Amino acid sequence: MSPEQVDDVAAMRRALQLAARGEGLVEPNPMVGCVVVLDGAIVGEGFHQRFGGPHAEVNALKAAGDRAKGAKLFVTLEPCCHTGKTPPCVEAVLAAGVKRVVIAMRDPFPKVDGGGIRALEAAGVECVVGVLEDDARRLVAPYLKLLETGRPWVIAKWAMTLDGKIATSTLDSQWISNEASRARVHRLRGRVDAVIVGARTLVADDPLLTARPTGPRTPLRIVIAGDKPLPIDRKLWNTPDDGAVLVAVGEGYPAADAQQLRDRGVEVLTATPPQLLDELGRRRLTNVLVEGGGKLLGQFFDQQLIDESWAFVAPKLIGGTGPGPIGGEGVAFMRDALTFTEVTHESIDGDLLIRGRTKLEPRMDANHRE
Amino acid sequence: MSPEQVDDVAAMRRALQLAARGEGLVEPNPMVGCVVVLDGAIVGEGFHQRFGGPHAEVNALKAAGDRAKGAKLFVTLEPCCHTGKTPPCVEAVLAAGVKRVVIAMRDPFPKVDGGGIRALEAAGVECVVGVLEDDARRLVAPYLKLLETGRPWVIAKWAMTLDGKIATSTLDSQWISNEASRARVHRLRGRVDAVIVGARTLVADDPLLTARPTGPRTPLRIVIAGDKPLPIDRKLWNTPDDGAVLVAVGEGYPAADAQQLRDRGVEVLTATPPQLLDELGRRRLTNVLVEGGGKLLGQFFDQQLIDESWAFVAPKLIGGTGPGPIGGEGVAFMRDALTFTEVTHESIDGDLLIRGRTKLEPRMDANHRE
Repeated sequence: MSPEQVDDVAAMRRALQLAARGEGLVEPNPMVGCVVVLDGAIVGEGFHQRFGGPHAEVNALKAAGDRAKGAKLFVTLEPCCHTGKTPPCVEAVLAAGVKRVVIAMRDPFPKVDGGGIRALEAAGVECVVGVLEDDARRLVAPYLKLLETGRPWVIAKWAMTLDGKIATSTLDSQWISNEASRARVHRLRGRVDAVIVGARTLVADDPLLTARPTGPRTPLRIVIAGDKPLPIDRKLWNTPDDGAVLVAVGEGYPAADAQQLRDRGVEVLTATPPQLLDELGRRRLTNVLVEGGGKLLGQFFDQQLIDESWAFVAPKLIGGTGPGPIGGEGVAFMRDALTFTEVTHESIDGDLLIRGRTKLEPRMDANHRE
Repeated sequence: MSPEQVDDVAAMRRALQLAARGEGLVEPNPMVGCVVVLDGAIVGEGFHQRFGGPHAEVNALKAAGDRAKGAKLFVTLEPCCHTGKTPPCVEAVLAAGVKRVVIAMRDPFPKVDGGGIRALEAAGVECVVGVLEDDARRLVAPYLKLLETGRPWVIAKWAMTLDGKIATSTLDSQWISNEASRARVHRLRGRVDAVIVGARTLVADDPLLTARPTGPRTPLRIVIAGDKPLPIDRKLWNTPDDGAVLVAVGEGYPAADAQQLRDRGVEVLTATPPQLLDELGRRRLTNVLVEGGGKLLGQFFDQQLIDESWAFVAPKLIGGTGPGPIGGEGVAFMRDALTFTEVTHESIDGDLLIRGRTKLEPRMDANHRE
């Protein structure tokens, strides 16, 4: 809570900052932040802190107390009007005597979807929708994707040399990226719902696929195999306390080998990558991380399943014929490249982390825009 | 010229900034900058502006005029004590009545190599050597390399996708990088002494290898071929006004084909890449730019000929089996990677330019250090 004077955009920016603190803690709920402003000063702040806990509006109104009366409330997502794990936020907003509600974006969740705004307006509360909407949509893009497509948001991650390789010609890859970059990957693992690798990575690296140290959530550990039996001596099959393990196999995967995995507590599904994503969406997984190798990322690329990329680029040259990060068929011409329009980069102790996403689709429903 | 108060380090930093303005204009001379300071204020500035023109000290002393008497002179490289294209700078410094000379680094040029310092000290002028020496050495690294090894500084340049490829599987590469990045490459071409490509690039792209627009110098255009005859219908052979053309061929290159090139005004040399660099060094070329493709850069990498890399990384994914930027044999293990310790990156209209160099060798001769 701060006494500084804020305008509408500054207040919403603050609400977005607060919302982001819920990352990894609230999914499959959306991250939401809220700020209560009276006479141009912030008198209450809150955000959705954990799945099942109170919503952002309730936390902010509680912080504001009596000062919410006659105040303006800024919230990054339309307040809910239904009883879920908690009572509807619209009721809390009305009970607090808020005069005006500024909303970054309408919530497409079917039980809300404009209903929160209608309920507020019906009760005489003025609503403005669309302040920093693009930022709000960017923040909850995985939530929106899951709602709209039934599939989780797919983050592709790799570490490569400055000459674009994820291993030498002898397949040595320890290490491409530096310690700080690898720690960053563990932080990423600790906030996603699943970590996925291909059979080759399982064979070559015998990975644990855990977040070390653990983060706010424990990812499901997934291997995508074809029809060839996976080795039976992998760490993944012997570390049940580190998180559940799922193997997606091809139709021709031998039943006896599948049974061997099941005997070790591994869930075995017959599924292609898109079918797997559908299944993970049904289980309400919001974010999955595909760590490679190049063959698996190539499959994901060819089937247009990648939503976001995290490329760690190490300032090293190795030359030769080692693999690149994304194999598969690829596109034939540059004009067909997948072009990221939202790109950020940051230096991590000498490595460079380049993150990309494709631009958000323009919002089709322009109702309720200011 | 500025009246602001400066300390020794700030004065030398300013001299280094001035020196850098000569890039592309002074080679094979070193870039040099100079600042004259009286009573803590800069009273004269200068730099070496063009090959054959007055040296930095002369320009700075001229700007300072009478105020040089009793002043401190900061210069990024030891003043010369021999008559080259211009009279020795030591004489100008002494004639101006400078009291103290601060020098970033000793000039290893054989006709100087401490002689300038000795001459100043013999005349009773106090000399300090080593202020910002690392920065000074970094600035003139190509000059130093040419002096020490007889070979030009080799800049490897490529444009790749975020998944590390310089072309699609069909070898389409137009365009990987954006217009601003390509303009940046043209600026780079316009300040180097030669632009080098391999035979495959000549065949696939039919490049001009010119700087467009032209820069301070017109690079020699070089193709490194093996024993296989180059096509005879390339633009390079028909644009003599755009700069001289040199082809380095293998021992088995057919004499008749070499003659065809010579008939078109092309110089043909039998030389491997290291032999070519030796020859270019004899001609006092300071900077050469190797633009690929991957096979040629692989040869340069395998023979440890690369001094600096410029990697333009476009935020695009193409997948598939297209080539990476550096082929060749490569190293077998990550521990043998060429690791850049001096890395800079900048955003160019969405692309990322990552530049790397290996760290400067510590200066062996620690005499004259402050």
